[in-house]
Amino acid sequence: MSGNRFGTLFHYISWGESHGPAIGCVVDGVPPRISLNPDDIQIFLDRRKPAQSRFTTQRKEDDKVEILSGVFEGQTTGTPISLIIYNQDAKSKDYTDIKDKYRPAHADYTYDAKYGIRDYRGGGRSSARETACRVAAGAIARKILKEQVGDVMIRAAVVQIGPHKIDSTKWNWEEVERNPFFCPDADAAATWGVYLDEVRKAGLSAGAVIECHVSGLAAGLGAPVIDKLDADIAKAMMSINATKAVEIGAGFSAVEMSGVENSDVMRKDEHGNIAFQSNHAGGILGGISTGQDIIVRVAFKPTSSVLTPIPTIDKFGQETEIVTKGRHDPCVGIRGVPVVEAMMACVLADHWLRHKAQCL
Amino acid sequence: MSGNRFGTLFHYISWGESHGPAIGCVVDGVPPRISLNPDDIQIFLDRRKPAQSRFTTQRKEDDKVEILSGVFEGQTTGTPISLIIYNQDAKSKDYTDIKDKYRPAHADYTYDAKYGIRDYRGGGRSSARETACRVAAGAIARKILKEQVGDVMIRAAVVQIGPHKIDSTKWNWEEVERNPFFCPDADAAATWGVYLDEVRKAGLSAGAVIECHVSGLAAGLGAPVIDKLDADIAKAMMSINATKAVEIGAGFSAVEMSGVENSDVMRKDEHGNIAFQSNHAGGILGGISTGQDIIVRVAFKPTSSVLTPIPTIDKFGQETEIVTKGRHDPCVGIRGVPVVEAMMACVLADHWLRHKAQCL
Amino acid sequence: MSGNRFGTLFHYISWGESHGPAIGCVVDGVPPRISLNPDDIQIFLDRRKPAQSRFTTQRKEDDKVEILSGVFEGQTTGTPISLIIYNQDAKSKDYTDIKDKYRPAHADYTYDAKYGIRDYRGGGRSSARETACRVAAGAIARKILKEQVGDVMIRAAVVQIGPHKIDSTKWNWEEVERNPFFCPDADAAATWGVYLDEVRKAGLSAGAVIECHVSGLAAGLGAPVIDKLDADIAKAMMSINATKAVEIGAGFSAVEMSGVENSDVMRKDEHGNIAFQSNHAGGILGGISTGQDIIVRVAFKPTSSVLTPIPTIDKFGQETEIVTKGRHDPCVGIRGVPVVEAMMACVLADHWLRHKAQCL
Amino acid sequence: MSGNRFGTLFHYISWGESHGPAIGCVVDGVPPRISLNPDDIQIFLDRRKPAQSRFTTQRKEDDKVEILSGVFEGQTTGTPISLIIYNQDAKSKDYTDIKDKYRPAHADYTYDAKYGIRDYRGGGRSSARETACRVAAGAIARKILKEQVGDVMIRAAVVQIGPHKIDSTKWNWEEVERNPFFCPDADAAATWGVYLDEVRKAGLSAGAVIECHVSGLAAGLGAPVIDKLDADIAKAMMSINATKAVEIGAGFSAVEMSGVENSDVMRKDEHGNIAFQSNHAGGILGGISTGQDIIVRVAFKPTSSVLTPIPTIDKFGQETEIVTKGRHDPCVGIRGVPVVEAMMACVLADHWLRHKAQCL
Repeated sequence: MSGNRFGTLFHYISWGESHGPAIGCVVDGVPPRISLNPDDIQIFLDRRKPAQSRFTTQRKEDDKVEILSGVFEGQTTGTPISLIIYNQDAKSKDYTDIKDKYRPAHADYTYDAKYGIRDYRGGGRSSARETACRVAAGAIARKILKEQVGDVMIRAAVVQIGPHKIDSTKWNWEEVERNPFFCPDADAAATWGVYLDEVRKAGLSAGAVIECHVSGLAAGLGAPVIDKLDADIAKAMMSINATKAVEIGAGFSAVEMSGVENSDVMRKDEHGNIAFQSNHAGGILGGISTGQDIIVRVAFKPTSSVLTPIPTIDKFGQETEIVTKGRHDPCVGIRGVPVVEAMMACVLADHWLRHKAQCL
Repeated sequence: MSGNRFGTLFHYISWGESHGPAIGCVVDGVPPRISLNPDDIQIFLDRRKPAQSRFTTQRKEDDKVEILSGVFEGQTTGTPISLIIYNQDAKSKDYTDIKDKYRPAHADYTYDAKYGIRDYRGGGRSSARETACRVAAGAIARKILKEQVGDVMIRAAVVQIGPHKIDSTKWNWEEVERNPFFCPDADAAATWGVYLDEVRKAGLSAGAVIECHVSGLAAGLGAPVIDKLDADIAKAMMSINATKAVEIGAGFSAVEMSGVENSDVMRKDEHGNIAFQSNHAGGILGGISTGQDIIVRVAFKPTSSVLTPIPTIDKFGQETEIVTKGRHDPCVGIRGVPVVEAMMACVLADHWLRHKAQCL
Repeated sequence: MSGNRFGTLFHYISWGESHGPAIGCVVDGVPPRISLNPDDIQIFLDRRKPAQSRFTTQRKEDDKVEILSGVFEGQTTGTPISLIIYNQDAKSKDYTDIKDKYRPAHADYTYDAKYGIRDYRGGGRSSARETACRVAAGAIARKILKEQVGDVMIRAAVVQIGPHKIDSTKWNWEEVERNPFFCPDADAAATWGVYLDEVRKAGLSAGAVIECHVSGLAAGLGAPVIDKLDADIAKAMMSINATKAVEIGAGFSAVEMSGVENSDVMRKDEHGNIAFQSNHAGGILGGISTGQDIIVRVAFKPTSSVLTPIPTIDKFGQETEIVTKGRHDPCVGIRGVPVVEAMMACVLADHWLRHKAQCL
Repeated sequence: MSGNRFGTLFHYISWGESHGPAIGCVVDGVPPRISLNPDDIQIFLDRRKPAQSRFTTQRKEDDKVEILSGVFEGQTTGTPISLIIYNQDAKSKDYTDIKDKYRPAHADYTYDAKYGIRDYRGGGRSSARETACRVAAGAIARKILKEQVGDVMIRAAVVQIGPHKIDSTKWNWEEVERNPFFCPDADAAATWGVYLDEVRKAGLSAGAVIECHVSGLAAGLGAPVIDKLDADIAKAMMSINATKAVEIGAGFSAVEMSGVENSDVMRKDEHGNIAFQSNHAGGILGGISTGQDIIVRVAFKPTSSVLTPIPTIDKFGQETEIVTKGRHDPCVGIRGVPVVEAMMACVLADHWLRHKAQCL
């Protein structure tokens, strides 16, 4: 109950500090006889890997995952899958400054307030490095969905960096893999490149909005009342480092619509299947999937580690100031894309297994 | 695991359908020897009660709560507290229309897709009537906080209805209790009255944004990684009927700030205590409370039941249209205020007990 | 987490005190579209009902169960099923003695030590009256098994009262329903009648052993390591009031066998199916069902309420003595039979749903 | 929910197969600022280590534990503690026989029935090697108890091997560390040595009974109804490999007592403290600790791997026979002693944290 566990039936616990020997997670509840090898996981870790462009942290980490249990002759056995990623480029020597000073907008002060102790090296447990475990677990969740639910496509993209939004009419999923920003709009990507170079040179940072789409999911996943599908998605997204807001479907803009406008009218298509005429609901009604695309937007705050000196206090209660040196992402939101996708996959795999248990 | 349970240590399960004999909840994990009588709960249920103005549903429900267990001679005993509220004004006769037709933007279609059966009377389990249980549980959560944590003040207000936002410089908490909208800005309340009368007459409906503030909470509540305090708040809020978005602190607007701007600078005040210079974080860093006010905004979509006919399909897959008669709130968001407060109280009581277990 | 909840997927929470207005439980996770009416539950409550012979308590309770939610037109809807049983013959007036004195072998002292408060009337929450909720939940569990697993037969019988064991070669399940002891051996039943009359007249009480058999369960239910099927059965049985020991299969007598003797040899029967040659394992290996009968024995201590004065202390720490008046079972183990069956049904229903989620 | 997790607040998940690269566990919920280094854990693993006498398996395993996270500068940080033990002497080459044949009294058949796949090497996940993780988690649980509860002493001993019981009047805890059987009676130990040599030479095996005593625990730990302290102990013990029965206090022998005899009379001692005159309850009443010693007995079946050929079937349904070669304990119960103690420590640490959360 100390907050490091995800899920009910598809379940994982993540462990590890940024500058300890390793990080990892144990994934439990995975159905047996699903093919799984390290490459199935590595491919997603590689998408999240740092130092792939000048717009992400220059910390060099191979993020090579090893499977320690739960897989036999290339198949899951139904027993816990233990994954480990060794920390390689952990430069622990130079944390004198962070040791005693609280970096504003970081978890330094709150960890000390809660635990009275913290592994300050690289942010310890509060480092975004932990999200590698989420991506690894998400890769396994995708395998379950693929094997048991079918071609559920989970894709995310950055739709805003700082004040610059994409033009959503130019949305092109293929573009997402072509630029270092996971941006679906080529023109916006160009703008962002220029903008982030400026931000970086100024010793500043920028926030981002990520939008995630799920297609191919049947109606019926989710639960009423507390564990609503959108509630569990909201929690999963807000548990990612640096997130500050979540919207499902029309989100805040639904407030300005009337009930008539906001209703996604249901008709039949030529095959006699249900065809919604719009998707303000974002694919979820009453906490249960409608069969439409699930659409979620997540706000990431600007990277808190900046090269500009900021006034703060230290753990002795004295006023001081701090410059967060080290190798940081000018916009942490960018590398959030594979993490958002992974958390979505984990939520869906969990709700799939729950649905199977109760309703199939 | 079918999604009707809240919390880990402060835990409740809610049950009941809109037009069944009763609704209720069982609250477990409450510390012993806390004074509790039905009035402590009733006072909050009365805030949520329908038919208190022309801007909410005209369904008449006393929402009288009874305590069936767990309290002895006016004190909690540490055993489960079973609460029951009998349904009184349940007009079940006239649901022919809803029985077979799927109301757009309601959970009718998704419940059928999931369960293959639903109690269609008044929306059954998906009715917002269920939120009375949340308010009742929240009243008990408040008692725990008051007894064990101190003067934690949890207050919410409506800050936007349809396109009309309040002027936040005019925020006055006392005003909230003076108008039928829980509005902290008297001028905005006047505007909303005119606006909602129009909406109601046009057979339409409106959305709303609720903002919740928590003050008096010490630093240290919450958990890192998955059960972050903001993640649990996001889930709790998104589990309320009709919600579509949640923001913590600066929320989406943080995206357009730089890391320097977004940092809440820490200084010492005249007493040597930590004094943050701003609160973009909304009182939570790294998933753990900072001791500042917690600030959350929640978007409610417009009431889905409208008097305007909307095209839809029925459960036999045929195209038809529907007018949702019955007694509905023109803006469900309004009555969301006590519900948002209650969910916040439940999250905080749960995290308080968790914190006590691990860290005190 | 305060210990009143059973199960993971098939889940219930029980609430209520012996002399409060009612007791009840909320059963969650039940699959939709299972036929259920109050009689399906009442039939099992009636087996447990007090005052059916001179060998059980003379407290008169109809134990009439009402279904408050989760069932619509005679079918489960997949939402929580709230059950309530009103307390009728609660004679609360005469508890002066119990109010301050700790009855030996009861939970009076430990409740006070834990909570600092207790509803002393009739034992409050620690009363065996709570087991009615278990029986009610078990009745629903049986419906799930019948609907989804097939003809799983769960039957228990008393096999020992005080020092008197049955002759297991005379085991006859039909006999169980013919005597007031749920005894499968007619001769033993006769002996017990005489014995218990003596015990009762002497103001004493007797213990019992119950044996439960499950037949018709396929291989594969359960889980390795922690939530082993036998581990969950052991917990369920030891959670019943007055139980002190649990054995699976050969139990303690396995200690004296060699590994060769204790091995249940597997052969093929005439149909080519697996046929075990013995069942020392009690139907469970490695925490997973083998397809053989599950066999469990549970020891119930003698009723702690006796008419003989016993020395004790009171809550002020003073030495005193107590005679537990009131209407008590001379052998609580007897009425344990439907409770043991119910807990078994609950464990199996839960493991069935878990198995379905992960492995089917 | 696939059954590899222990506990609620003190929580661990264990992972790993007998002949995979490693086994391990992640312990979560540990309070911060408790001193912890690998030696604190190793000391208990060493007690369980194989090949310490001719009466246990000759498999050579150092069982060297490494701490990968959650500890900083010798103190727990409140974040998950990941422990890993590499498998060294895993002789995987010679498992042709076990690959297809089901060893009687092992989990081979049931794993296949459940999962349709199993890592057959050395028993895979069902190997008693998994209990090393329990011992490691138990060592951390002990640290919590010591730091927060005080001098709680948890000690177990073997009290019966095969048909040979100890003479309990000769009980001497110091003797337990002097013989290879954890036997508290020197004479019995001598008898067992002779007996087990015979058993081993005959290619047979023997069962055992372990008794565990907890002293120094205050009254008030536990919970009523479902998560009773004795129920959780019963589950924990029955989850250990090869266990078939659990007794608390008088256990089965309570059945033959009257309620008067079975009552542990409460008096005052010379200091005015409560002094029970006997301990038939085994230190638990109504699911809550009384402050007396907790006393539990656990039955271990004889080792199922024997050198005698036993008829069985293979996974193709054909009749065959099997000799379980390999290096096995002639009496697995012996090495159960540190495992029983560890599970007891885990249950108590969990209930301690739960008690603290709700009642302190």
